Amino acid sequence: MELLTTNNVWMMLCTALVFFMHLGFSFLEIGLTRQKNTINILFKNVFIICVGLLMYYIGGFNLMYPGFEDGDFGFLKFAGFGIAAPENGMTPEYADGGYTWWTDFLFQGMFAATAATIVSGAVAERIKLGAFMIFTVIYVGLVYPIVGSWQWGSGFLSSLSIGEAEGFYDFAGSTLVHSVGGWAALIAVALLGSRIGKFSSDGKPQALPGHNIPVAAAGVLILWLGWFGFNGGSVLSADPAGTSLVLVTTCLAAAAGGIGAFVLSTILYKNYDLTMFLNGILGGLVGITAGADLMSPNEAVIIGLLAGIIIVLGVALIDKLKLDDPVGAIAVHLICGIWGTLAVGIFGSKAGFDQFLVQGLSVLIVGGFCVTTAFIIIFALKKTIGIRVSEKEEIDGLDSHEHGMDAYPDFRLNQH
Amino acid sequence: MELLTTNNVWMMLCTALVFFMHLGFSFLEIGLTRQKNTINILFKNVFIICVGLLMYYIGGFNLMYPGFEDGDFGFLKFAGFGIAAPENGMTPEYADGGYTWWTDFLFQGMFAATAATIVSGAVAERIKLGAFMIFTVIYVGLVYPIVGSWQWGSGFLSSLSIGEAEGFYDFAGSTLVHSVGGWAALIAVALLGSRIGKFSSDGKPQALPGHNIPVAAAGVLILWLGWFGFNGGSVLSADPAGTSLVLVTTCLAAAAGGIGAFVLSTILYKNYDLTMFLNGILGGLVGITAGADLMSPNEAVIIGLLAGIIIVLGVALIDKLKLDDPVGAIAVHLICGIWGTLAVGIFGSKAGFDQFLVQGLSVLIVGGFCVTTAFIIIFALKKTIGIRVSEKEEIDGLDSHEHGMDAYPDFRLNQH
Amino acid sequence: MELLTTNNVWMMLCTALVFFMHLGFSFLEIGLTRQKNTINILFKNVFIICVGLLMYYIGGFNLMYPGFEDGDFGFLKFAGFGIAAPENGMTPEYADGGYTWWTDFLFQGMFAATAATIVSGAVAERIKLGAFMIFTVIYVGLVYPIVGSWQWGSGFLSSLSIGEAEGFYDFAGSTLVHSVGGWAALIAVALLGSRIGKFSSDGKPQALPGHNIPVAAAGVLILWLGWFGFNGGSVLSADPAGTSLVLVTTCLAAAAGGIGAFVLSTILYKNYDLTMFLNGILGGLVGITAGADLMSPNEAVIIGLLAGIIIVLGVALIDKLKLDDPVGAIAVHLICGIWGTLAVGIFGSKAGFDQFLVQGLSVLIVGGFCVTTAFIIIFALKKTIGIRVSEKEEIDGLDSHEHGMDAYPDFRLNQH
Repeated sequence: MELLTTNNVWMMLCTALVFFMHLGFSFLEIGLTRQKNTINILFKNVFIICVGLLMYYIGGFNLMYPGFEDGDFGFLKFAGFGIAAPENGMTPEYADGGYTWWTDFLFQGMFAATAATIVSGAVAERIKLGAFMIFTVIYVGLVYPIVGSWQWGSGFLSSLSIGEAEGFYDFAGSTLVHSVGGWAALIAVALLGSRIGKFSSDGKPQALPGHNIPVAAAGVLILWLGWFGFNGGSVLSADPAGTSLVLVTTCLAAAAGGIGAFVLSTILYKNYDLTMFLNGILGGLVGITAGADLMSPNEAVIIGLLAGIIIVLGVALIDKLKLDDPVGAIAVHLICGIWGTLAVGIFGSKAGFDQFLVQGLSVLIVGGFCVTTAFIIIFALKKTIGIRVSEKEEIDGLDSHEHGMDAYPDFRLNQH
Repeated sequence: MELLTTNNVWMMLCTALVFFMHLGFSFLEIGLTRQKNTINILFKNVFIICVGLLMYYIGGFNLMYPGFEDGDFGFLKFAGFGIAAPENGMTPEYADGGYTWWTDFLFQGMFAATAATIVSGAVAERIKLGAFMIFTVIYVGLVYPIVGSWQWGSGFLSSLSIGEAEGFYDFAGSTLVHSVGGWAALIAVALLGSRIGKFSSDGKPQALPGHNIPVAAAGVLILWLGWFGFNGGSVLSADPAGTSLVLVTTCLAAAAGGIGAFVLSTILYKNYDLTMFLNGILGGLVGITAGADLMSPNEAVIIGLLAGIIIVLGVALIDKLKLDDPVGAIAVHLICGIWGTLAVGIFGSKAGFDQFLVQGLSVLIVGGFCVTTAFIIIFALKKTIGIRVSEKEEIDGLDSHEHGMDAYPDFRLNQH
Repeated sequence: MELLTTNNVWMMLCTALVFFMHLGFSFLEIGLTRQKNTINILFKNVFIICVGLLMYYIGGFNLMYPGFEDGDFGFLKFAGFGIAAPENGMTPEYADGGYTWWTDFLFQGMFAATAATIVSGAVAERIKLGAFMIFTVIYVGLVYPIVGSWQWGSGFLSSLSIGEAEGFYDFAGSTLVHSVGGWAALIAVALLGSRIGKFSSDGKPQALPGHNIPVAAAGVLILWLGWFGFNGGSVLSADPAGTSLVLVTTCLAAAAGGIGAFVLSTILYKNYDLTMFLNGILGGLVGITAGADLMSPNEAVIIGLLAGIIIVLGVALIDKLKLDDPVGAIAVHLICGIWGTLAVGIFGSKAGFDQFLVQGLSVLIVGGFCVTTAFIIIFALKKTIGIRVSEKEEIDGLDSHEHGMDAYPDFRLNQH
């Protein structure tokens, strides 16, 4: 019981930290976008948190862990409306005493909303709020937990074996969270098209600078803090060796990711690019997430450094493909999510060619499913209610049209 | 001893989270008010934290828990100046091993300042700083701990019985914290009068928009995070079943509160109102606070949803009554505080008509005392040093007159 | 094992909180400086976190704890590249079961970057980024861990005895962290010279107000939160009596520091100075840091109050000496760091004249070393690559020249 109590304290702390990541995402997104769409982005992010939790409560949790605890939970099998704990859900028998059933639900519920948040950044400044809300409800409520069930719900990916490799491995969700969001971001961006003015008539990408870089930087530091919980909590107990190693690999990869992106971008672009530095940190964090418990500190540094380099190249690639991703979400969450997933086959205690193949195959399976479902949802929305705001609305900003409100309505300059 | 250590870690974490709520309150208040009063509001909030802690140290704690631990603490009985721990204060004998005496003091001390913070938002942009500071010292130093002693200090409310109901119930302070602050806010707003320009000559409320909505939104997310500690710590130990249920009910009520306010305000006002969404979240949080440990997740969702609806109606009601509450503190903390307190008689494991009566009676008793004391203090201040700044000062903004400082003195627009 | 798990959870939480202090430092620095240098300051702070962690990983940790755990770690003795845990590093045998080896590394690593962050604020708005980065690498990578090894690595300061006093005492780093940073700040400011316009032709200090005071205030509250981990974690276990007392003394000193600075500055300058209030809080926090575990709450209040008074006088003194420290880092970290260190000889359970002498002597030894090394590094940089940006760059702002970026590039005023 003492150990359950301690484990549960750790898991509740991690739950709180993952919750706090939503402030980080919000800050990052509003900071890197234009002022006229700030209220809209905040609205989307607050909506995602609330509806993400509620969808997970209504059905997501049951959907994601279908066979969990001897059939007490089935596909959309509710105990009345919502959730209900199994009899042993508060005892050390549940989940090897790593946490209580309530904590399990809440920790996983905080993860659920993350996938939609990733999309939110990529589609910012031009998506219709109604369409985005419908997408979020479906993607968080159905797609995310279905993919999650394949691995974390003991589904087929968790037993996908090739040669010596026994099952896909994704510790805290480089694929199951970050690239699930990233694939949808990619599809959404492709179907939405770029913002007015993002590409000149000859196809050259133009800078559409954000309106509050300090807030974006704060967002990244808050996300790094949140990752203490995101990865640290994915140990699913407070096991001292496991949790503390994971925090070390997580932080070293973040630091190395930042330095990698800083150095490469300084060499390539001859200036000290703060945004690239920040995205490098995020890339390192996403990159270590699949194998944070398998890596030595040295390997974490290498994975992070490479993630930082990948970010710089990835952002350039996205631009070259004429995809308009205002916050770099595709490079960070999709490309580094794939990198982190594959890195499990290259570095750390599971490394091996067979594991690499399993990792790659799982990336493709998850990618195929996410691309398909995201396309169906977003395409259906496009053909019905429409997904893109009018040109006038986009130029004026979404805040005034959808919300009748400015982000800084009373802001004045100092008269002195 | 292992369990005491774990419990104490949880309680210290919760203490830190409740402390952090003060940043949430500060952000919410400055975001929803005009730029010219920003320094003043920050000053008030920082003052409240410091003086709240010190007043609780000088006498509040002893006053709130008078008979606690076999008479070692009496009414204003100091061990010298300030506080001193009882002999067993660091052992598992103290408080059933839920925490140490030091943690007890600090956790409760962090709560104490909250009541005054609630008032701060409602009276913003027109109250004299000196008058507010005097009010804070008295209200935090005397009124809050006296009311607290009636229930949490094992006073008469805790044994107020009607029929089958055995005592008032207020888990984490819907009444003892939030409505204690809310009643004073109501009185203060009534005695202060509305801000210049808030009501037109024919009595219609005018929008006086705030100056930094992103910061207000961040404030709400920080407050939600803080509520993990506010409610989670009110279990007074790390008991796994208790704490993790409380976090689930707290978060579900917050999410449902947001959605409730969002849906109703969208229907009523035909636009996506971020401020209402945010206040709905806060309403859900305040609403669940009295019974967070008694409710099932389903009940928490219902309580939250209703709180969200109450917020939308409450804000309109306050406007109709020509009360000028710039941040919606009365609707959030007073009205939803009452709602949450009564909900303990309607939902959850203590529900029943007798309990409902006890809850209602306690709301009236606490309300009567708070209204009376707040009126005496504020009326006395009004008749002596005055509580309202001059018209010129209000129009110019309090920052330049009281602080000789702008909030963004060097802010410039981009010249490109 | 249960106790190790709990201790380790606490220490990981404290590690996360100390990490979060970097957001606090960043916010404080950008808030109190001019908008045109915001990107530059954020870049420096993000760089410090990343490179601080990586330097500590490459060699700092081994350097700071050279003889730790029976010779497994020597001076720059790597297990391959980077760090490697000893065999017992995850067992209760390590560090009396207070934490695992990984947690030890990460907690200490988060401390390491702090010293450079302190310097960052003092030299803001005029230092060359390249020079600052080189300085940071050397100071964090070598100077900080060498000084740390003298005390926390069981070096000669820890056994420096005079009469009855058995060794220097610095609980959480008033000297080893704060004044290590503060001395370097002093030297750097002296070698850099003041910002253009800071002193008029007749030598009078001019106000160069910052651009975002709310962000600076948020920074201070985040730093206070972080200090829960900074001091609370310095117990090096979750020992209930130790940790909870430390949080109480820390918070009371912070509150008293704020009130002390508020009262004195109001008397002296006849206005309610928010910046002074905030710096008083920081002064109280730095002041209690050396003896947070030795003091009673009453003593903590006195130490904090005096620290608040010292801040007001210290800021005036720095101005008088024509040193230009935009954020008050020297008064906060150096002067209050010395005050806190000496206070261990005056108050609390180690008080005594002999201890006072040991404390003072240690301040001088550490100060001598830091002044010397900082001077050598910065003077060498000055004579080679130069440490100060051109006059044009300083007037235009560092953001446009070094980063090609504005902090708020798309910020617009409300048109209504």
